[in-house]
Amino acid sequence: MTPSFDALQKQLKRLPGVGFRSAERMAIQLLLEKPETCQALIDALSYAQENVSSCENCGNLCESGECSICQDSNRSQSGLVCVVEHVSDLLSLEKSGAYNGSYHVLHGKLSPINGVGPSALNFDSLLKRAKSGEVSEMILALPNDIEGEATCHYLIDLLEPYEISISRIGFGLPSGGSVLYADAVTLRSALEARQNFK
Amino acid sequence: MTPSFDALQKQLKRLPGVGFRSAERMAIQLLLEKPETCQALIDALSYAQENVSSCENCGNLCESGECSICQDSNRSQSGLVCVVEHVSDLLSLEKSGAYNGSYHVLHGKLSPINGVGPSALNFDSLLKRAKSGEVSEMILALPNDIEGEATCHYLIDLLEPYEISISRIGFGLPSGGSVLYADAVTLRSALEARQNFK
Repeated sequence: MTPSFDALQKQLKRLPGVGFRSAERMAIQLLLEKPETCQALIDALSYAQENVSSCENCGNLCESGECSICQDSNRSQSGLVCVVEHVSDLLSLEKSGAYNGSYHVLHGKLSPINGVGPSALNFDSLLKRAKSGEVSEMILALPNDIEGEATCHYLIDLLEPYEISISRIGFGLPSGGSVLYADAVTLRSALEARQNFK
Repeated sequence: MTPSFDALQKQLKRLPGVGFRSAERMAIQLLLEKPETCQALIDALSYAQENVSSCENCGNLCESGECSICQDSNRSQSGLVCVVEHVSDLLSLEKSGAYNGSYHVLHGKLSPINGVGPSALNFDSLLKRAKSGEVSEMILALPNDIEGEATCHYLIDLLEPYEISISRIGFGLPSGGSVLYADAVTLRSALEARQNFK
């Protein structure tokens, strides 16, 4: 349309889940229909960019050196660490209310085919935590795919020298799911993960 | 999560088509996964905010007083004006390549139930254009709904004193559409808009 409109549209299109037409709609709203939202978005971006960083300990979002979960002594001293791929996974687990230990965010999973090796992931501070002796149990909450599997095996080898019990979250039917509509791989995992009643 | 993260998520959620979870994903990408996109987005927003304005003549996006379509004398001197609701409608028409006159963007449609009266829409400069005598034909490309209809009738009354022929875009089956799957209102308009072969 105009050079600066096109440049804005291009940047909006880089956001996850935003295509050409959505970026166009967003740019029109920001510039013409609700121009007051444009300055508010610039301010929020600049403020967050300045203030938000990665927690030195676990890789979660934080506004000081350590995130609020690591600062919570009840949680950080539980000895329980849940390893997740992304911060969004951590947020999902937090919202579920099903977990009350601390976390470790890898910011990705091993994927040699995409050039993601161990050095690209947040393993260094995980090893540091393992060495410090603060961790008694590690729960691997990584995706149920080949790369997730590979990352789990890498972590098991990496943590071998330390006295840490390691587990991986369960796989099977999701809540509300029925056998009828489940795919073959899910059914196989569900059968393998069967639990004895008696 | 953190105050500045939450503030950014709230601003992103105000973008059209963005919900709570998409805003969360966007904020995580902007702050952690691809931090270089954050500054690029801030720059593009600030630059567009400074440079983009509304064309004094037609209401389209522009970077100087008049937009590129109004500046194109072939198009502005054709006497043909296509009236649209939003800039995005103008962009759709431009992409179709089916129209080569000038435009007029109303930035909305009359909707008394939502408090949108004539003063909220871009009618003043339309009247000015009608008075100047530059317009010979006006094509109303407004939505096929009650508010679009009301806006058309208002415009017909408004332009009554001037010698301008007024038409409205056709309604009927869309390209590739079949009678089988068309809804009742579309079929009614298609029957009303029937064209004689002989």
